[in-house]
Parts: sequence; structure tokens; C-alpha cells
Amino acid sequence: MDVALLRERFPVLENTAYLNAGTDGPVAGAAIDAAEEELRAQLAIGRTAAHFERNSELKSQLRERYAGLLQADVQDVSLTTCTTEGMAAVVGGLGLVAGDEILTSDEEHPGLLGALAAARERGVTVREVPLARIGLEVGPATRLLACSHVSWLCGRRAPDLADCPVPVLLDGAQGVGAVPVDVRALGCDAYAGAGQKWLCGPDGTGMLYTTPELRSRLSVDRRGYGNMANPGDGLAARLHDDARRFDALGLNRETLAFALAAFDTLAQAGWTALHERAAALAEHFCELLGAAGRTMAAREPGTLVAFTSDDPPAERASLAAAGVVLRDVPGRPWLRASVGAWNNERDARRLVEALAG
Amino acid sequence: MDVALLRERFPVLENTAYLNAGTDGPVAGAAIDAAEEELRAQLAIGRTAAHFERNSELKSQLRERYAGLLQADVQDVSLTTCTTEGMAAVVGGLGLVAGDEILTSDEEHPGLLGALAAARERGVTVREVPLARIGLEVGPATRLLACSHVSWLCGRRAPDLADCPVPVLLDGAQGVGAVPVDVRALGCDAYAGAGQKWLCGPDGTGMLYTTPELRSRLSVDRRGYGNMANPGDGLAARLHDDARRFDALGLNRETLAFALAAFDTLAQAGWTALHERAAALAEHFCELLGAAGRTMAAREPGTLVAFTSDDPPAERASLAAAGVVLRDVPGRPWLRASVGAWNNERDARRLVEALAG
Repeated sequence: MDVALLRERFPVLENTAYLNAGTDGPVAGAAIDAAEEELRAQLAIGRTAAHFERNSELKSQLRERYAGLLQADVQDVSLTTCTTEGMAAVVGGLGLVAGDEILTSDEEHPGLLGALAAARERGVTVREVPLARIGLEVGPATRLLACSHVSWLCGRRAPDLADCPVPVLLDGAQGVGAVPVDVRALGCDAYAGAGQKWLCGPDGTGMLYTTPELRSRLSVDRRGYGNMANPGDGLAARLHDDARRFDALGLNRETLAFALAAFDTLAQAGWTALHERAAALAEHFCELLGAAGRTMAAREPGTLVAFTSDDPPAERASLAAAGVVLRDVPGRPWLRASVGAWNNERDARRLVEALAG
Repeated sequence: MDVALLRERFPVLENTAYLNAGTDGPVAGAAIDAAEEELRAQLAIGRTAAHFERNSELKSQLRERYAGLLQADVQDVSLTTCTTEGMAAVVGGLGLVAGDEILTSDEEHPGLLGALAAARERGVTVREVPLARIGLEVGPATRLLACSHVSWLCGRRAPDLADCPVPVLLDGAQGVGAVPVDVRALGCDAYAGAGQKWLCGPDGTGMLYTTPELRSRLSVDRRGYGNMANPGDGLAARLHDDARRFDALGLNRETLAFALAAFDTLAQAGWTALHERAAALAEHFCELLGAAGRTMAAREPGTLVAFTSDDPPAERASLAAAGVVLRDVPGRPWLRASVGAWNNERDARRLVEALAG
């Protein structure tokens, strides 16, 4: 991989040690150019039939890209506006009631917990257990197992859930793009991912993979031109049979084109090479941080490096002032560096030096 | 109003008789500039805390603008991605069951019918009646009256529903921006509007007005950082008390800035002046079309002019070739011209001349 070339594509990297992809990835010049091209086209030509055809074309292309990266069939991939939206479609769509249980871990993101809280308001039991042993905790009332593929707090991985006897929903916000994902090998029934994090797309993009079996059990309230097979048929209109039924209704051309160009910028470098470089670099970050006296929160192979801090918000602010961008982990004494293939050894040194003051 | 100045702000108007705002409005140069500025800022600076603060700031500003135009309190207005999304939040959120009835009209848009079809799958009765008499049809099982404020087919207006004994949801996709709206005077409990039509915003923007009383009865499955008051509190996190609880989760800076600049471009001309000019101009279109032998589908004061055509798809295509952009009405022998204050008498002449061949 030509690392210098990859880094050049993301202008923010020139002056900043940008370690924030777990929130929002760096932005590629080509992605902004692509969005602007779509915007300008609307200005001169207006928004007529060709405008909507272009939107459909961009959606098809983005869906294919996402499906390829998930190793999924394209008809099983929905385009969402964020990971949270996809998880809510699954948790809410199951229509669980009092007496049913959802099993989750004790280190989940608000985007999943929000959907679980909504289910709890309808009387569903939500049981939180350690991520490492979640597969062993399935009980007779469990109707859904919902947890992180990669924990947003510290990078911990879900255990092998391929033989889980109930449907499995994985929160892949810190998975897809960061680490290799094969939805079939994971054995999950649903996998929700983000477009704006490790895929460097715009805010307001994401994906949801679902198996046909799970999909057929999920109700869908939001139905419009974007997700119905025959919207002109009034009350007799049906949802698309495939995963387009969960598509977000308002994805615009400029947002889609941004996502697509960002994806292709990364894909040019090769996903395997990106994943291997990011993992190796994250390991290097851990070594330097360890040598500097920091303890890792939970170190597993991957791209999130969470480490101890006596005052995370204050250290985050002083790092930002030194041009090192990362986040503190709410409620834990940790800072979290998101290490991508676009980072380098100098970023690691800058982090450690800025921490030393 | 300085019509020449208004028209200059929309480049598409220079060569095209653009009569398509009922689908998507013309795009202002200032709106594209604003979107591009937000995009470029992400490129150089990355997406850090300031990026998310900017997003919040733009959301507040857009919400204030929308609330002002609806004559609503700002805490009663949600930011959605489209009219359809807002209507689905109301229809789906009520949790109606078998034995309940939703009353609607026989000329509704797929965006409302989709939500009604979902309710029907849960056993709810959906009864379609003529729009003009819908207020008289409320029965003992009716739990919701849901219909157009202004019919998308022909511009017909909903009757006075201020004294309706059940909650009223209005589809305002052809209302807000096109005609004056006062949600209190309309007596509705919910009003869903579009950002991309008469407000000339980007695809993927819209609004939902709800009264606090109705809001308290609606469940919300989709919960994330964007609509919770205390997202860091795990399963104990609560939704915002106000209408932000229905906010779409993925609205990005560039989309918000586009919507805001488009709104302000129009607001500079003055809403009253815009509404009066559009209505008068639509009347002029009717006169010219009538003189040319066309019959209006249903002529009420407003901005949609639907008129007879022997072959709507073919005439639409030949009009497009002549630089006149409008749409055919699916399932009816009509063409529909959307007349905005940005149009002029020459656009009317071009339409009639192009129809004459």
C-alpha cells in the first residue's frame, strides 16, 4: 500500500494527528468533490426525472459497495442514515412484548440502548451481561441477542455467536471498515454499520444487513417511494421484498456521492491491506502508550486503543490543542484513540509526546 | 417584491419554465454555496467537537425558521427527512389495534397511505372518504383523522377540521411554503411538511409539528444521540420532552445549511408576498389553460394547477423537450403545474404554447 498517497487524499492528516474515526472518519478531497458535483448539477438543471434516476443509481452503487465489504448479498443490505436507525428497525420491528427478553452486554452504545429502552417501556425484559460470556446467557425467554461486534468503549470483540439459538443483532459501528467482516461467518441475523466512521463517509449514512428469515418477521411503519415496490397502488402498495424495505427515505444525491467516493478512496488501497495496516499500527500505539506508563482498557486486535487517563476530558482538550484529536470515553477513566490505516508512526509519537505535556 | 431579483437567485429559471416545486423546488445558488462551505470545513479541520456543535447550531436555526412559518412554538417542531417520515411517526406511534379506525381521504399520497397500510396490517380499519366531507365522517371507532392539507393531486384543500373530536394529522407536503399555514388556526394535532418542495431545500429535509398532548401519546423506537435528553445514562436515558424526540438522527451539516440558505433566500422576499404572488400567478395559469381548452381538475386558491390531458406521460415528455418541467398525475388524466412566486407570466405562455405544439 502506498501510505503517502493514501494520506494525501485526506487533507486533515497534514497537520493533525487525527485519531477520531470511531466517531467520524477523516474526509477525503474526492468525497467533497463528488458531493459538490451533485449539488451543482441540481442548480443548473433543476430536479427533474433525471435527478431522481441519478439518486437511484447512486443508491444501487453504494449498496453494492457495502454488500461487498460485508460479504453479503446485495438484496440483504439496506441503506440507513446511521447505525442506530438500523438497530431500531430490528429491535422495534420484532414487536416483542412483556415476557420476552432481549439479552445484551454491559458495554453497549446509546444507539443500541435507546432501542432497548423503548422495548423495555413495552414490558420487554432487557438483561445486561458481560460481552465475553453473552453467548452462554441465552435463556428460555430470550427472543433476541443484541450486542457490539466491536465494543465502542475499548475495542473488545463479541464472542463467537454462530451457534446462538436466537436471532443475533450485531452493532457494527466499530466493525465494518475497521476490521474484516463476514456476516455469514459471524452467524448474525442482522448487522448494523456506520458510513461516517471507518468508511469516511458523510454524517447521515449507514447500512443494515438482515437475513431474509429475520426480515420477514420485522414490521415496517415508515413506507414511502423509497422502500415500496408499487407505491402508486394506494393501500395495496407493498414493501420491497428485499432489504430495500428498510432503506432510509431521505438520502440525497450529494450525501450518497460523498459516501461512494469516500468508499472508493479507501477501496483503491485494498481492504485487506487497510485492515492489516490499521491493526498493526494500533498495536504500535499500544506499545508506545504502554512504555509511557498507560494501561490499555482491553486490548484486542483491532483499531480502537482505549487507555487510562486521570482526567480524560482535560487530557482530551490539551491533546486537541496540540493537534491530536481523539475522544474520552464517557463514564470511564479512559481516552480512546481510533487508529486507521491513514494514520502513521508519527501520529503515535505525537500522541505520546502530547500526553507527556 | 423584486421578482427579477428573486428569479436571479435560482439559475434553473433562466432557461427553463420550472413548474416542479410540488415535487422538488428550484435550487438557489446561495443554498449550494452554503452546503459547499460546510463540506469544505470538514475537509480541512476534520470532524471534531466543533463539527458537532455546528450541526446542533444549524438544527436550532432551521427549527426556528420552520416553527415561524408554521406559526408554532419551536419546541413543537421536529426536523425530519421528509413528510412521509413525520406522518409515519404519528400513525405508527399511536399503537392503534384491531377495532380502531383511521379516517382518511380518497386522494392521499403514497407517503400517508404507506403508514396507513402498515396500520391496516395490524388490524386497524382504514376508511377512505371524499376529502371535502371528511370532517363529517368521524365515527365512534375513529381514533385518528389523517388527510392532506392541500391535495397533491389537484390542490384541493381540507375542510375546516378545527372542531374535529379526534386527533387530526395533516399532510402538509403541498401546504407549508406554498400557502399560509397557521397550525393553531387549522386546529390540527400534527402537521407534516417537506423541506425540498416549496421551501426549495435539499432532498432529505422536512418537519413535523405536534401538540404536546399528542406527542405524549406517541411511542418512539428510534433513539440516539440526536433525540435523547441524557443519552449517556444507558437504559435510563430519556427522550427529549419536546419535539426533538422525533428528530431524524442523521441530518448532516451540509444538508441543514442548504435548507437554511434556501429558506432565507425565500424569506428575504417576504412570505406574504410570496404566497400572494404564487396564488395570483396560479390563477393566471388557469385562465390561460382554460382559454387553451384545458379543464382544471379542481381549482382552489393555491399553487397546484392540475389540468386535463389526453396522454399525460407523452405530453409531459414533449413539454420537457420544450424546456417546460412539470409532472403527470399517476392514475388520472391530468398534468400538474406547480406555480411558485419564482415563476412568471412568460412561464405560463411557454406552457400553453408548448401544449399547442
